[in-house]
Amino acid sequence: MQGLKSENTIVRLLRERYGVANPLIREGIGDDAAVIRPSKIREHLVITTDMLVEGIDFRREWITPRRLGCKSIAVNISDLAAMGARPLFFTVSLAVPSNISKRWILSFYNGLTDPDYSGKTCLIGGDFSHTNGGITISIAAFGESIRRKLLYRKGGRAGDFLYVTGTLGRSAAGLRLLQNGCVHPQSIAQKEAIRAHLCPKARWETGIWLAQCGMAHCMMDLSDGLSIDLHRMCSASHVGAEIRTEDLPILPESRHWGCDPVDMALHGGEDFELLFSVPPNKACALEKKYPLHFPKITRIGAMIPGPAKIWRTESGNKRRLLLERGYDHFAH
Amino acid sequence: MQGLKSENTIVRLLRERYGVANPLIREGIGDDAAVIRPSKIREHLVITTDMLVEGIDFRREWITPRRLGCKSIAVNISDLAAMGARPLFFTVSLAVPSNISKRWILSFYNGLTDPDYSGKTCLIGGDFSHTNGGITISIAAFGESIRRKLLYRKGGRAGDFLYVTGTLGRSAAGLRLLQNGCVHPQSIAQKEAIRAHLCPKARWETGIWLAQCGMAHCMMDLSDGLSIDLHRMCSASHVGAEIRTEDLPILPESRHWGCDPVDMALHGGEDFELLFSVPPNKACALEKKYPLHFPKITRIGAMIPGPAKIWRTESGNKRRLLLERGYDHFAH
Repeated sequence: MQGLKSENTIVRLLRERYGVANPLIREGIGDDAAVIRPSKIREHLVITTDMLVEGIDFRREWITPRRLGCKSIAVNISDLAAMGARPLFFTVSLAVPSNISKRWILSFYNGLTDPDYSGKTCLIGGDFSHTNGGITISIAAFGESIRRKLLYRKGGRAGDFLYVTGTLGRSAAGLRLLQNGCVHPQSIAQKEAIRAHLCPKARWETGIWLAQCGMAHCMMDLSDGLSIDLHRMCSASHVGAEIRTEDLPILPESRHWGCDPVDMALHGGEDFELLFSVPPNKACALEKKYPLHFPKITRIGAMIPGPAKIWRTESGNKRRLLLERGYDHFAH
Repeated sequence: MQGLKSENTIVRLLRERYGVANPLIREGIGDDAAVIRPSKIREHLVITTDMLVEGIDFRREWITPRRLGCKSIAVNISDLAAMGARPLFFTVSLAVPSNISKRWILSFYNGLTDPDYSGKTCLIGGDFSHTNGGITISIAAFGESIRRKLLYRKGGRAGDFLYVTGTLGRSAAGLRLLQNGCVHPQSIAQKEAIRAHLCPKARWETGIWLAQCGMAHCMMDLSDGLSIDLHRMCSASHVGAEIRTEDLPILPESRHWGCDPVDMALHGGEDFELLFSVPPNKACALEKKYPLHFPKITRIGAMIPGPAKIWRTESGNKRRLLLERGYDHFAH
C-alpha cells in the first residue's frame, strides 16, 4: 500500500470501526498505548503472543485475508483457552509488503474481529509496518482467570489419564489437501479438514469449563502436534506418558487423501484442540459432567512415573518410544 | 538455526536465564501464556506493541544483535513513557531466517533485557518463528499507571505551550552517517548520533515525572518525526499548533555531515524524545520544578485554536504550513 499518511488513515479507520464501547477500555486504538481499567475482582492477568509468518505459517494464495484474520486471533485465543482464561483484549502488529491493498488490510481486520473466532475479545491497539519480505502478523492477547482458577502445563501427575478434545490430525490433513492442489473439496470431510486448517476455532469455552470444574490437573493446546506438545507437558510435569494409538480420535477419511490418519494425529500441527490430564478417581465424574454441546473428549492414555518420555502402544505390539516429530519452526 | 527441538532448547535457555523472581509473575516463560498476579493497588494497565522489520527499521550489517535487542525494548518502553506509565513486563515474538545462529538469538535477548534500556521490565514470554524473509521482531510491553495519573495525546488545549525533551534530529543524523558508510565515527557528536540511532534510550523516568507533576495536558513520544507526530497530537486534541524553528533543539554539528539540522529536527524519526503541552500559567512552575538530572526540555511553540494544522515560523518570515514528512512506514 502506498501513500503518505496512509498509516494515519488506517489507524483512523480502525478506531472508527473497532472503538468498542467496552467499559474496561479507558483508551483503545490510536494513542501510544492502550489503557485498561482495573477490573473489579482481582483476577490474574493472562498474556500470550503468537506470530504468523507468510511462507511458514500460511500461504497467501490459499487463504483469504478475512480467514487469515480469523486464524490469527484463534491461534492466540487458543493459548488463553489452554490456561482456562477468559479472553478480553488483543493487540495486533502487521507488517505487509507494498503490493498489499488497503482493502486486503481491512478485510484482514474484519476476520480478526469476527465474533465466531475472537469471541468477545476487543482489539485495543497495534502497529503497522512495511516489509520487504512476506506478511508477518504478531498478536498479543490478554485474558483473565475466573475465580483465580487456571490450569498450567506443570500440574500433571503420574497416573493421571490423558484426554484430548475433538479430532486430531484434521488440520494437517486439510493442509495436505491444499498442498495437493485440492481447491474444490468434494466431500464434507474434505471441506471440514480445509476449514480446520484455514479457520481453526479456539476451544475457549471448553478450556474455561475444564479450569473451573476443578477436576483436571494440567492442560495445554495442541499447536505443534501431539508428539511435541505432550512431551512439553510431560517435561513441565516431570512425568512420562503412554498413549494408545488405537484410542486416538483420528480422521479416518484422510486415508483416502494419501494421509496416514494415525501419523497425522500424532505429529500433525495446528489442531488447536486441548490436551489435559485428570486423576483416575475424578475421570468418571468429569466425563459425566462434561457438557454435551462441547466438542467430544477422548481418553488417549495416561501419565506414568519416570522421565519425560512418551510411549506409544498398539494392541498386540510392544510399546515403543514416540519420537517428537511435530511442527518445530526451527527444524525446517 | 537448524535442528529438531531447537525451539524447546531456546525456550529452556530463556526460562533459565530470565525466569526473574518477580512477585507479580505467577507464571513466566514456558507455558501457553504468562500469568500476572493482580497488583495490590488498582492501577490502570497500559499496553503497547511495536514491530521492527529488517530492511525497514534496521539493517543487520549496522547493528549488533545485542544493540538490536536494546533498541527493540527501548522503542516499546518509550510508548509507555509517553503515557507516563511505569514499565513492568514484555513479551517478544521473533522470526528469524535459517542462517541466524543460536548465539545471535541469545545475544539479542541479552540486549532486550539490558537494564540500561529495559529498566526493570521483565520478559514474561513470547514466540519464535522461522521466516523466509528478514528478521522481524514484535514486542508487546505492559506498564501501569501510578496513582492513576496518565497523559494522553488528546488532552492538549489551544494556548498550551509545546515542549520537547532532549535534542531532535540526532537519530536521523546518525542514520545518515551510517548510510554514508561512517563505520568509524570521528567526533563525540558523531558517536552520540550513531548511538542515538542504534541504541535509543526511552525517557520513562521523565515521562512518569511529567504525568505525576500534574502540570502537563498531553504527551506522546517522537517516533516518526516531529511534523507527523505533532500532527497526530493536534488531531487528537482538536487544535492546531505553531512552532518556531529557531527554538528547536537541533544538532548543529550534523551540518558538517551533509544534514540540514532543522530539517532533521522537523522530520527525522526515531528520536524517542517526549513531546508534551503545558498551559501557560503552569509553564514557569514546571520549568522550575523539572529535575536537573533529567534531559533538558525546550519550549518549541504553542497550540492554537482551529483545525489540526501545524505552522512553522522563522524570525522575519511569514508563517507557513509545516508539511508532514516524518517517517511513515506505508509511504515508502
